[in-house]
Amino acid sequence: MTYCIATLLDTGLVFLSDSRTNAGVDHINTFRKMHVFEKPGDRVLVLMTSGNLAVAQSTVHSLHEQITHSDTRASLYNVHSLFDAAGLVGEALRHVHRRDAQALREHGIEFNAAFILGGQIAGEPPRLFQVYAAGNFIEATLDTLYFQIGESKYGKPILDRVITRSSSLAEAAKCALISMDSTIRSNLSVGPPLDLVCIKRDALRVLLHRNVTSDDDYFKMIRSGWSDSLRHAFHALPNPDLAQ
Amino acid sequence: MTYCIATLLDTGLVFLSDSRTNAGVDHINTFRKMHVFEKPGDRVLVLMTSGNLAVAQSTVHSLHEQITHSDTRASLYNVHSLFDAAGLVGEALRHVHRRDAQALREHGIEFNAAFILGGQIAGEPPRLFQVYAAGNFIEATLDTLYFQIGESKYGKPILDRVITRSSSLAEAAKCALISMDSTIRSNLSVGPPLDLVCIKRDALRVLLHRNVTSDDDYFKMIRSGWSDSLRHAFHALPNPDLAQ
Repeated sequence: MTYCIATLLDTGLVFLSDSRTNAGVDHINTFRKMHVFEKPGDRVLVLMTSGNLAVAQSTVHSLHEQITHSDTRASLYNVHSLFDAAGLVGEALRHVHRRDAQALREHGIEFNAAFILGGQIAGEPPRLFQVYAAGNFIEATLDTLYFQIGESKYGKPILDRVITRSSSLAEAAKCALISMDSTIRSNLSVGPPLDLVCIKRDALRVLLHRNVTSDDDYFKMIRSGWSDSLRHAFHALPNPDLAQ
Repeated sequence: MTYCIATLLDTGLVFLSDSRTNAGVDHINTFRKMHVFEKPGDRVLVLMTSGNLAVAQSTVHSLHEQITHSDTRASLYNVHSLFDAAGLVGEALRHVHRRDAQALREHGIEFNAAFILGGQIAGEPPRLFQVYAAGNFIEATLDTLYFQIGESKYGKPILDRVITRSSSLAEAAKCALISMDSTIRSNLSVGPPLDLVCIKRDALRVLLHRNVTSDDDYFKMIRSGWSDSLRHAFHALPNPDLAQ
């Protein structure tokens, strides 16, 4: 399983992914699900992947191939908009589908993939997309603060309650880590290390890319601090009167 | 969809269910999912249902039929243990399966059901069971504080963090309402009115059965109070230093 979250704010974008993959609970591995494509001053794009790992890796490989041949081909390094970049990701996914879907089906395996692509290309505001297994995609609008892929439910309530478009990058990073912590506690197949990337609007480069391990002091503080806060808040609310 | 939660404590049991059913988003109705079987001084049993509404109603109907003929048949009103009661629920479900499953399959509809049964029968401690669609069931043990059926993920993190076996009935009722609130906020197909039932250990009757509507003062306080508490707790935790 996987949990990835990306938040779109007035001041930029925050991305957080876990790194656990599993093929059954007896086959758990660590693979990065976050891929950064950066040409400082021109563009910075972040792609997060969930679903079948072979599908995700093949798609990312194909996007890198395009970059190697950027002089003659459209690639994430030369398209003029994030919309076109999302189209490239969708097309790469369809290429893998054409090649692998039938063979997977013969082995009873679903062609399963969901990607998040966000970032900024010079001349545009920051944008955020979610790409589906069919290669189609949607864009976050003013009413959409975030996209999640993978095991999204445990970590959703906190996002809905505290994040607004005007939240700072630091607040959004904190919220993403709390959301991830709630997910890790409830689903064994989501786990650290985490990849945290922050992009500041108009900087056109990565502001922060931190590998967050279980030993990360800030993450440890969030994990224990948030539990303590929840317990305190719970006990501070009055109990119902059961005699009524 | 549905969300039901039951908590087993040293001092008794707390049950909470929503009442929304849907067959597509354009066909939403209100049906009680909580069924109380009470013989004060002898037993009190609570059954909560999720899944296909016709399956649930047929199963409950069959359990009521048995009660009508309690003088000659085993029923929830005369079995000697909660374990046997769970067996009756499972058997009633299997009866519905034998009658309906093939016809449902022909219409592409899954035979889908999950029940929670809990309560106390004189001579036993309070017990809590979850009954699956196949009619088999599991019992909550010392390590199991609660069972959930239906849309369980949004409301799970708070349960894991604040409830212990020694929590009071009032605390467990408060926690169940917070867990329900998180679920209602995230899933349109879960909604009020709610049914809240509390059973005190060895009382062998219902302590409280409250119909909680959207206008319920305590639930309104929980809804706004919990959101405020979460936002306050969130802002009280230090932000990460993104310059690192």
